[in-house]
Amino acid sequence: MIRVAVIGATGYAGAELVRILSSHPQVRMTMLTSRQYAGQLFSDVFPPFYKRIDLPLENYDVKKIVAEADLVFMALPHQLPMNMVPELLEGGCRVVDLSADFRFSDPVEYETFYETHRAPELCGESVYGLSEFFKEDISGARLVGNPGCYPTCILLPLLPLVQKQWVDLSHVVCDAKSGVSGAGRGVSLATHYCEIAQGFKAYKVGAHRHRPEIASIIEGVAEQRPAITFVPHLVPTIRGMLATSYLKLKENRTEAEIRECLQQAYKDRPFVRILPEGRFPDLSFVRGTNYCDIALRLDPETGVLILVSAIDNLVKGASGQAIQNMNIMWKLDETMGLDILPPVI
Amino acid sequence: MIRVAVIGATGYAGAELVRILSSHPQVRMTMLTSRQYAGQLFSDVFPPFYKRIDLPLENYDVKKIVAEADLVFMALPHQLPMNMVPELLEGGCRVVDLSADFRFSDPVEYETFYETHRAPELCGESVYGLSEFFKEDISGARLVGNPGCYPTCILLPLLPLVQKQWVDLSHVVCDAKSGVSGAGRGVSLATHYCEIAQGFKAYKVGAHRHRPEIASIIEGVAEQRPAITFVPHLVPTIRGMLATSYLKLKENRTEAEIRECLQQAYKDRPFVRILPEGRFPDLSFVRGTNYCDIALRLDPETGVLILVSAIDNLVKGASGQAIQNMNIMWKLDETMGLDILPPVI
Amino acid sequence: MIRVAVIGATGYAGAELVRILSSHPQVRMTMLTSRQYAGQLFSDVFPPFYKRIDLPLENYDVKKIVAEADLVFMALPHQLPMNMVPELLEGGCRVVDLSADFRFSDPVEYETFYETHRAPELCGESVYGLSEFFKEDISGARLVGNPGCYPTCILLPLLPLVQKQWVDLSHVVCDAKSGVSGAGRGVSLATHYCEIAQGFKAYKVGAHRHRPEIASIIEGVAEQRPAITFVPHLVPTIRGMLATSYLKLKENRTEAEIRECLQQAYKDRPFVRILPEGRFPDLSFVRGTNYCDIALRLDPETGVLILVSAIDNLVKGASGQAIQNMNIMWKLDETMGLDILPPVI
Amino acid sequence: MIRVAVIGATGYAGAELVRILSSHPQVRMTMLTSRQYAGQLFSDVFPPFYKRIDLPLENYDVKKIVAEADLVFMALPHQLPMNMVPELLEGGCRVVDLSADFRFSDPVEYETFYETHRAPELCGESVYGLSEFFKEDISGARLVGNPGCYPTCILLPLLPLVQKQWVDLSHVVCDAKSGVSGAGRGVSLATHYCEIAQGFKAYKVGAHRHRPEIASIIEGVAEQRPAITFVPHLVPTIRGMLATSYLKLKENRTEAEIRECLQQAYKDRPFVRILPEGRFPDLSFVRGTNYCDIALRLDPETGVLILVSAIDNLVKGASGQAIQNMNIMWKLDETMGLDILPPVI
Repeated sequence: MIRVAVIGATGYAGAELVRILSSHPQVRMTMLTSRQYAGQLFSDVFPPFYKRIDLPLENYDVKKIVAEADLVFMALPHQLPMNMVPELLEGGCRVVDLSADFRFSDPVEYETFYETHRAPELCGESVYGLSEFFKEDISGARLVGNPGCYPTCILLPLLPLVQKQWVDLSHVVCDAKSGVSGAGRGVSLATHYCEIAQGFKAYKVGAHRHRPEIASIIEGVAEQRPAITFVPHLVPTIRGMLATSYLKLKENRTEAEIRECLQQAYKDRPFVRILPEGRFPDLSFVRGTNYCDIALRLDPETGVLILVSAIDNLVKGASGQAIQNMNIMWKLDETMGLDILPPVI
Repeated sequence: MIRVAVIGATGYAGAELVRILSSHPQVRMTMLTSRQYAGQLFSDVFPPFYKRIDLPLENYDVKKIVAEADLVFMALPHQLPMNMVPELLEGGCRVVDLSADFRFSDPVEYETFYETHRAPELCGESVYGLSEFFKEDISGARLVGNPGCYPTCILLPLLPLVQKQWVDLSHVVCDAKSGVSGAGRGVSLATHYCEIAQGFKAYKVGAHRHRPEIASIIEGVAEQRPAITFVPHLVPTIRGMLATSYLKLKENRTEAEIRECLQQAYKDRPFVRILPEGRFPDLSFVRGTNYCDIALRLDPETGVLILVSAIDNLVKGASGQAIQNMNIMWKLDETMGLDILPPVI
Repeated sequence: MIRVAVIGATGYAGAELVRILSSHPQVRMTMLTSRQYAGQLFSDVFPPFYKRIDLPLENYDVKKIVAEADLVFMALPHQLPMNMVPELLEGGCRVVDLSADFRFSDPVEYETFYETHRAPELCGESVYGLSEFFKEDISGARLVGNPGCYPTCILLPLLPLVQKQWVDLSHVVCDAKSGVSGAGRGVSLATHYCEIAQGFKAYKVGAHRHRPEIASIIEGVAEQRPAITFVPHLVPTIRGMLATSYLKLKENRTEAEIRECLQQAYKDRPFVRILPEGRFPDLSFVRGTNYCDIALRLDPETGVLILVSAIDNLVKGASGQAIQNMNIMWKLDETMGLDILPPVI
Repeated sequence: MIRVAVIGATGYAGAELVRILSSHPQVRMTMLTSRQYAGQLFSDVFPPFYKRIDLPLENYDVKKIVAEADLVFMALPHQLPMNMVPELLEGGCRVVDLSADFRFSDPVEYETFYETHRAPELCGESVYGLSEFFKEDISGARLVGNPGCYPTCILLPLLPLVQKQWVDLSHVVCDAKSGVSGAGRGVSLATHYCEIAQGFKAYKVGAHRHRPEIASIIEGVAEQRPAITFVPHLVPTIRGMLATSYLKLKENRTEAEIRECLQQAYKDRPFVRILPEGRFPDLSFVRGTNYCDIALRLDPETGVLILVSAIDNLVKGASGQAIQNMNIMWKLDETMGLDILPPVI
């Protein structure tokens, strides 16, 4: 059994970790922390889990964690994990961090888009946790920087084509749409039901920090910095994310060749589904699951390749992929605890 | 008083026409037709209007319409109006058609994307009813082809820049999102609440018939056929539409110059609002109104110009613009009956 | 022209007041106050009103208000108006207070359910602003205590039957359902989109402070304290309220007699619609309007009378009724500025 | 392994059966039927299950079913199962019927509220499948009439108190609220997204056929016909149901005694959760699960007992309870395949 601590168990990503881990056959949760709710039960804060997950919430205590946990999931806002991870690693824990703190191998790049990094020496060691692409590195890692939700959704359809060097990286447009849970459980007017429920808007237009994350990973694969234009939008739905990416190919390829490329890339990866021709993803089709559904169309009139991909932002876009990485780190079946079926509706 | 007939008064666009016209100070509705509900009252079919709009619904009767109406709004599926419009015009009525039948000045183009045209001789005469751009022609028109919702939303931010010849028309991406009412009032699994309410998807990817409509109008202005890649998406909201368009400029322009260009273009047009820097449209901000809200951002990293625009698909995207065109045709104040305020929430 | 001040113009009820008043032909808004947003424009806080309601928001200034306003609408949380109203009245303003502070003619009753009253001497003077029932008193009032949303929705179908002494007041069940805007614009986890959007729950079960308000008004009419069991519920919708009340009659009456009683009671009241047999209210049918729609059914099997009523909680349940009361106070047509049509959908 | 056939696998209840059964460790689905979609795969009709449940859909074939299935779930509209069940039983299958056809032990009662019964001889044999109350009978049954969703939600909190003879059955009010999936997957204007999404209404006021079902079961327990006033409402949510019941007790009981009674009744029943004092159900807390959450409050002012209960209408209200009954019939752990966790949000 892997002894697991979840730090920040009462945000949406943290709670989703707890929920999925509670059914994982090889995991025992030994500590859940919450600054705000310490002393209460998990099910007091999340009443759906009454009589199901009645674990106590505690204050963060590094000694206790080091003594009781093999693996620590950090589900905290960025800037906090960088202060905690070094002592957890020293204590012998392995760490999967869901914040942005350890996603950039170059701390200078992190500091360009975020703030000063307080553990820059670990950035080089940390492995980017896009499970389908860095499995081998993840397998041996002490520290995994779990990808952002938008990068996960956008990179999965894109990277196999980048690897083939088919993509004209000078002009890639990524128009992405996320459900409201992506904004987290914190309260603000921006997540007030009445402000959201029948609306739809673009936000952080051309200024979202997931853009450099996407660019950085592509650059690592392509050895060329791509020009990504990225606009996220807010969908009035609780969970889910869909991205529509538009790009030109450097050489002529048929739609069938592109589909074949993606199918080959993912033929042994259980969580990526390349949809049959004519079928397109709906974020409700992946709700609650660790799937990334991908469809494509090569526009016959303009030659533009359209990639459509969908994930659940809290699962494949956060907690599910973190658990997938845990499975990889412990050499378990990648799908263990994660073979969740979506709802009928 | 303009005597008005609404043909197809019980679809969403038709009913919205009736609702807005019922408060128009210069209009008297003399006939509402509905094949399905003839013999009932409008308020029987739309119970919110009980004691407010208790007008009878009748079968289509060309003689009666010609005798009683100066203007006929056609709110029918395409292919039907082309059979009815010739005799209405002969009878002396003017016509605003909300279907696609009279949006293409070249019937061959219509037939490429739709079906055989049965009144091709009228296509050349018909005026495309994008009120802000073809006001003079609309003013004197017998027959107006009212624009599609997507073309309205996408063309309004784009056309002033095209007129300036600033836009590289070889690669324009339009990623558009519509509320469910765009699918009409007909019943189908695709509009079942349970299939929609927490979903989001792309549809008719690269294959929607509003693309050639957009391209055709741009071509008319630019004297060059643009390459538009167009993907519509379905938002789980009742009304509203938002488009995010991505394009490159042929020469260097600052964001301020582009904003200035749009502000100049619309400085006397009451229904287009160019938002101040840093503010972006939300489809809930234009709900129920005839506004088109527009924002822009020149991505400093990629040089791509991002245009975001929002309308209410049933108002500026259909019935409101049709009434705006009527006001223009009768030399009334353009905003008469249309100065509707959006809801607070 | 009535010179009007709106105190608390940036809550949902205050903003709705501003929105409706901006189209009222006999009103000039001379002051909008907001502690939180003073110095900004109304349209900065509510961007839908850009270029439509660009009035400044100011700090509360009693001297300025007294000098510039004939009527003051108070749209503040309870406990605040009681400190401000005395000096406004002394200064010669008339006041419509949307809080609970002046709804109880007996300050002791107020203090039982709320807190200490600081202007108890005004409670006796204040008129309960249920427009349809206290029109004459409202007409001459200096101070109107505008009803709560639940009391408005529940009392309108009930009071005419109570006046006839038909109702067994020993056991009345009121099961009410409100949209989320009833919780106000303040931020809290309870109004977070993700916590609400696909949920439904009862709240303040048997403990909501609108119960004594309902009971107090019925007691005033019936000279008997009724036993009201009242459970409010939260509907995942932005606006609207529906109440289903269950009661027994003291003597046998047919459904037709009861309908006739309600129709007679409201035959000259433009905002109450008694629906025809077999048709029931939907809160979407009154959205944005000042209507109260009422239906009834006498259960043939149990003899229980079922009353179903619906209002828009922000209009007839708050700001619309406040304006209706203003119209009554100034002897204007009751519907002036309020003859708003609901949306088609 | 239990060999299972699902008849009507493409309605919402049928699909939910397939989804849950696909993870049941003791079940093998041998046949899924669908008149409309025969020849396609289950995952063609329900694309979320692509690569997960790619089973074929077939036409109904009684011989094949009898040969290949031990248990048949009927998920069809009422009136159809009564024609099919006799030959299935003769062929040796056991049957759980989700329609109303076999819920009434007296066919005359069925015919009063539904239509002519074509297998009246089986009504007496059929066991009402409210798992918590009729476990022993279900255990040995050949034929189970699976309860309606409203009866399940209303009876579970009520029956233990009825058994104690505490309830005044002369006047019970049940105000119930259901998500849209209760209306089924058939298309109609009534389930069109735009007609539902921001609405809320009562329907079949005092006329819903679940009332006699509730009354019939209570009568069986109490040996007295109760007077139930029942009004269902439609909540704009996909799944879930909440009922608020109001009743008077025949003798004085404290809230604590009532809670104790319910806790005792369900202390060994894994799917009924009596919530702690002060906590009330939310239908989002039971979404996707087989739970029935129950809370209660004895109104101190009126003495009325308020019972609030929530279920997922498709799980505990249909397919989940059907599978729970299967587990009981095969002497399996009652929770097998059903220990589903609700979502965090």
